[in-house]
Amino acid sequence: MTRTPGDAGAERADAARNRARLLEAAARLVAERGAEHVTMHEVARAAGVGKGTLFRRFGDRTGLLLALLADAEAEFHETYTLGPPPLGPGAPAGDRLTAFGCALIERLADDTDLGAALARQVPLERLHGSQVARAFHHHIASLLREAGVEGDTDMLAHTMLATANSETVDYLRNEHRISTARLRTTWAELVRRVVARAGEPVGHR
Amino acid sequence: MTRTPGDAGAERADAARNRARLLEAAARLVAERGAEHVTMHEVARAAGVGKGTLFRRFGDRTGLLLALLADAEAEFHETYTLGPPPLGPGAPAGDRLTAFGCALIERLADDTDLGAALARQVPLERLHGSQVARAFHHHIASLLREAGVEGDTDMLAHTMLATANSETVDYLRNEHRISTARLRTTWAELVRRVVARAGEPVGHR
Repeated sequence: MTRTPGDAGAERADAARNRARLLEAAARLVAERGAEHVTMHEVARAAGVGKGTLFRRFGDRTGLLLALLADAEAEFHETYTLGPPPLGPGAPAGDRLTAFGCALIERLADDTDLGAALARQVPLERLHGSQVARAFHHHIASLLREAGVEGDTDMLAHTMLATANSETVDYLRNEHRISTARLRTTWAELVRRVVARAGEPVGHR
Repeated sequence: MTRTPGDAGAERADAARNRARLLEAAARLVAERGAEHVTMHEVARAAGVGKGTLFRRFGDRTGLLLALLADAEAEFHETYTLGPPPLGPGAPAGDRLTAFGCALIERLADDTDLGAALARQVPLERLHGSQVARAFHHHIASLLREAGVEGDTDMLAHTMLATANSETVDYLRNEHRISTARLRTTWAELVRRVVARAGEPVGHR
């Protein structure tokens, strides 16, 4: 098929329509049978779009899952950046940090959470470089700085996030039978110790 | 082949010899071509032992890798439990904790480290339940208690270990190009904040 330059607008509209249709079909299939059981072939067929188009649009299956993840996370992003405190602005940074980690842990413990289910299907090296992971890291680092924590807050944020990601939360829940409540308390304890103000009791026997 | 009860001793000796021979062959193959390229078939052939015996002895490939890992870690275990301070006994618990995490990070950054290479080949849910992982956790929790940290030291140890395991160290080095020195400094900083004594300045701007 050849197109004249005048068709460029129509082509862009086509592409956008296809993208939306593919994401919608993929989201529906993931909801119906779980992210681990959805193939590229089925998504293309359900969307009524060629498999070539699907691969061109998203690169590979992981690219499609990451696009779905970005969509699924948009609402949570709004909640922790614009929603009511203590997750959203208005509470002290330490309280927001506690609320944020607890929300991540709750979501990972919730079998119906779409974002958590999608994240588990993405290879770690792609997930850690994703827009969603970067947004989580940025949020934690910003709150650490806002709480007045000195030092390498970027790295502290990386290590803190490692304690509340799906690998850690999943193995502590599944292998060690740690309750969600205990995971939340530990996150809160970690935040308390990391953001403790100079001269303030940190909690020692 | 039938055996009389009197053969039980000889059978045990046979089993021990086969086990040692299989582990030796596996270790040699892993050293030669990397843990990821070693198959059960090759190990059995190199040891001159039937494949059935190999599977009976170790369950599966992961079981064999975990047995190799336990052997490879024995020396490190001796170093951190009995060797010279600050890794071994004799230094304050906080210093030992700092030294231990830094040693883990150094080992994960060392491409020639056999234990680290084997650990990367074991599925996470098996690795986290392994004798080696439990020993690491036990060591961190004990040092936290020795340092006088109050609260849920078992859980604090789990979360601290999550910041220095192969998944975290590998992705921070590979995806974010974080240097080993910066990882070590962050571990030391985390230890400092977690074991800070009440009333002691924790470091705030």
